[in-house]
Amino acid sequence: MTLVIYDIEDDRVRARVSEACKDYGLRRVQKSAFRGELSTNRREMLYQRLQQTLGRRAGSIQLYALCERDARGVLAIEQPPPEGGTA
Amino acid sequence: MTLVIYDIEDDRVRARVSEACKDYGLRRVQKSAFRGELSTNRREMLYQRLQQTLGRRAGSIQLYALCERDARGVLAIEQPPPEGGTA
Repeated sequence: MTLVIYDIEDDRVRARVSEACKDYGLRRVQKSAFRGELSTNRREMLYQRLQQTLGRRAGSIQLYALCERDARGVLAIEQPPPEGGTA
Repeated sequence: MTLVIYDIEDDRVRARVSEACKDYGLRRVQKSAFRGELSTNRREMLYQRLQQTLGRRAGSIQLYALCERDARGVLAIEQPPPEGGTA
């Protein structure tokens, strides 16, 4: 399982990073985090694409490869916005 | 190695989440991501504290435990803002 998290100021670059993640079949788990299954080879390809996407612009992108055991052990707190809320 | 990522609208709650991560000795690796060494026990304690911190408010907090091998395999693209830039 691969987790991609990013912290990028530029809206356009950020959008292109999320597009790349979607192209690789990852799904969004947070505003700036994508997750999904990738082979080692595909992960490396995505890494290279993200390097090109960011180029020399400021930002941080991190790719984590989780083994099956680690992937099973994720602790998540997911709290939806209240009904009729403004969030 | 533990990675905490979060996506929280409320500024005050977000600040309290980052405080909690710092209290547990994690260091910030992105605007909404902290990382560091935690025992299974301390990770569980942090998880409970973060659950209390978020309470019933909207948001997502995820804790990933990475084994030594996974922790070594992180691919990171870190691009600082240009000298004298506006970012």
